[in-house]
Amino acid sequence: MKLEKALLEKVYEARNVLSKIARKTNLVESKSLSKKNKVFLKSENLQLTGSFKLRGAYYKISKLSPEEKEKGVIACSAGNHAQGVALASKANNIKATIFIPATAPISKVEATRSYGADIQLIDGVYDDAYQAAIKFQQKTNGIFIHPFDDIDVIAGQGTIALEILDQLSDVDAIVVPIGGGGLISGIAATIKQIKPTCKVYGVQAQKADSMYESRKEHQRVELKSVNTFADGTAVKLPGELTFDLCEKYVDDIITVSEDEIASAVLDLIEREKMISEGSGALSVAAVMFDKIPLENKNIACIVSGGNIDVNILSRVINRALLKNGRLSNLTIELLDKPGQLRDVSSIIAHYGANVIRVRHNQGGEGTDINDCYLKISMETRDFEHFNQIKHALIDAGYRILSTVQ
Amino acid sequence: MKLEKALLEKVYEARNVLSKIARKTNLVESKSLSKKNKVFLKSENLQLTGSFKLRGAYYKISKLSPEEKEKGVIACSAGNHAQGVALASKANNIKATIFIPATAPISKVEATRSYGADIQLIDGVYDDAYQAAIKFQQKTNGIFIHPFDDIDVIAGQGTIALEILDQLSDVDAIVVPIGGGGLISGIAATIKQIKPTCKVYGVQAQKADSMYESRKEHQRVELKSVNTFADGTAVKLPGELTFDLCEKYVDDIITVSEDEIASAVLDLIEREKMISEGSGALSVAAVMFDKIPLENKNIACIVSGGNIDVNILSRVINRALLKNGRLSNLTIELLDKPGQLRDVSSIIAHYGANVIRVRHNQGGEGTDINDCYLKISMETRDFEHFNQIKHALIDAGYRILSTVQ
Repeated sequence: MKLEKALLEKVYEARNVLSKIARKTNLVESKSLSKKNKVFLKSENLQLTGSFKLRGAYYKISKLSPEEKEKGVIACSAGNHAQGVALASKANNIKATIFIPATAPISKVEATRSYGADIQLIDGVYDDAYQAAIKFQQKTNGIFIHPFDDIDVIAGQGTIALEILDQLSDVDAIVVPIGGGGLISGIAATIKQIKPTCKVYGVQAQKADSMYESRKEHQRVELKSVNTFADGTAVKLPGELTFDLCEKYVDDIITVSEDEIASAVLDLIEREKMISEGSGALSVAAVMFDKIPLENKNIACIVSGGNIDVNILSRVINRALLKNGRLSNLTIELLDKPGQLRDVSSIIAHYGANVIRVRHNQGGEGTDINDCYLKISMETRDFEHFNQIKHALIDAGYRILSTVQ
Repeated sequence: MKLEKALLEKVYEARNVLSKIARKTNLVESKSLSKKNKVFLKSENLQLTGSFKLRGAYYKISKLSPEEKEKGVIACSAGNHAQGVALASKANNIKATIFIPATAPISKVEATRSYGADIQLIDGVYDDAYQAAIKFQQKTNGIFIHPFDDIDVIAGQGTIALEILDQLSDVDAIVVPIGGGGLISGIAATIKQIKPTCKVYGVQAQKADSMYESRKEHQRVELKSVNTFADGTAVKLPGELTFDLCEKYVDDIITVSEDEIASAVLDLIEREKMISEGSGALSVAAVMFDKIPLENKNIACIVSGGNIDVNILSRVINRALLKNGRLSNLTIELLDKPGQLRDVSSIIAHYGANVIRVRHNQGGEGTDINDCYLKISMETRDFEHFNQIKHALIDAGYRILSTVQ
């Protein structure tokens, strides 16, 4: 209990420190998500640097001694932590060296560089960059800023709970994405000490569910691999401190599939006009797919970050459209007679679908008989709409070679 | 002057009426846009229905008599006005019939339908839908809600100016997208009566610049065609009322190109994590490309809406990436020897570009000699980065058939 009291004091202190730099992000009701419950979105994707990570990094750095600041800070991250540490260092006027695996999207590297950090691109994956960072730390004696397993970092993230209480004093539950556990530890330890009746649910991607597995085993479980487009929460092993705090303060942990996450990202774009990265949308996915065991309550979902590479974003949108029946692909066998493109188009137009791409392969010398096809991508309302069109084509005598939805 | 005083009174009244339903949207500084000036974004894309249009529609409908409300309202729109009228009608418990051209994106039609409006999909373009709406109005005697040329609608939009004054009392200029002119008329007439020193700049797409042309001629000019992906502001003829108010109160009108608009949409996604439609980003494009003749001032940019179809969004992102040198396509001639894909990939990897799509056509029976190529799409940092790679390939003996940026 002593640790938690110290943590809560740090959270209050962090709130003061952060008032100079961090945005107090909005907590706004989502009309489209509010069905069984009233659902509010805490938009940390609109935080400076595009994620909540600034809070923990800035508070941590503010607590360093002048001698430590002089040595500079070191971090290893391809994403939000990198940007948080970079901006926090710049604001504190100290040197930051950030190790990034060379496979990271260029946009994220450039964003981190834009805050003035010294970037070390390391060939290989995260673990290689981490090894390089540790070597550098040993050489320079700089301060390594852990992305989650650090009490000051956790306290910085906990300030979000104070803001939610300010913005929605009758909050009944908070739903929080989990990677290493820094965000949820801070929020859960804070809220449970102030308002113990408020539930806290954690959400992980099914393919990166280390805290979920650890909770089942009541000890930290290290995953062999993590494989999710929610890369910000792709952590193999929870922290020690964060695991203990989750065991004590988190009511339950839920998992969501890749398709559920993609649908949540798309929903946030279309309904809330907000960009969320995969990890940022975990909480929304849990609510959308009805995994929170509550009714008629006020639920705050943390949308934790918005740093998604636009090329990945395009793929996520595409996947979600296909999965929701809103984008449909049809491959139709072409017969050896004229006017087929016209006839097929007429049928599709009649049903009000919107053709967005056509590949018409009439064959020719050197092409196989299987190459004589018409491949159509179209916007549809839903699966039922698509099936109407498919059956109309079949009724008109066409043979459907394949459908992808 | 009598009209304007009446308008200002209506704006104050509209603020009260709207307090029941509309969000007071944020005005947040954009760190990335703040260079010559401090730039703040008024995020009406995060307004309910995804645009400011709710304000004017709701206030207009609230002013109808009980007899008029009984008859129901009629609107013609494929976009934001449709959604604004639909939600405003639902909130006032009256019937809305919305005429939409059948070519509108399915997502926009479904969003409007979701607010409970009766949707009439009309074959053809906007003008066909408009004719059908007028016929229906004559038959039913319902109330036609004009999207911009109506004093109550204009007053509703003017409430944005009051909010900006609340949020940033030392605002020096407001930058506003223009379609028919309803938004800028309301904002300009309001702010100039309260704080005459505040500048108001309007922004139009070069390919839909009816108010810009009208201002040059000092009379309303009707364009033959409008052709911009900023479809929410694709208006051929300004309103009478809105033209007069713009003549009187708007300091200048600026135009931006399609590529400038696309870059602004991308910048809002990557930096601000916000979805803006093309029209919504006109004001940001004007600031980004340094078209506002101010320095060291506080500028508020209205981001007026976020209702962009996701398929169009993908295309806009793509176009902006190409135009900024961040996505590059190369077609390389294939020679008749093995290992070329490996060699080309090595060169690209060496320079740190990220290959995202490869089309390798080794030719074969029935294919032309021109079909023997390697087509590569890659993420690059900028044009300079791309040129380094191109020259390295040429130095290694490859012949570049084409580049697309």
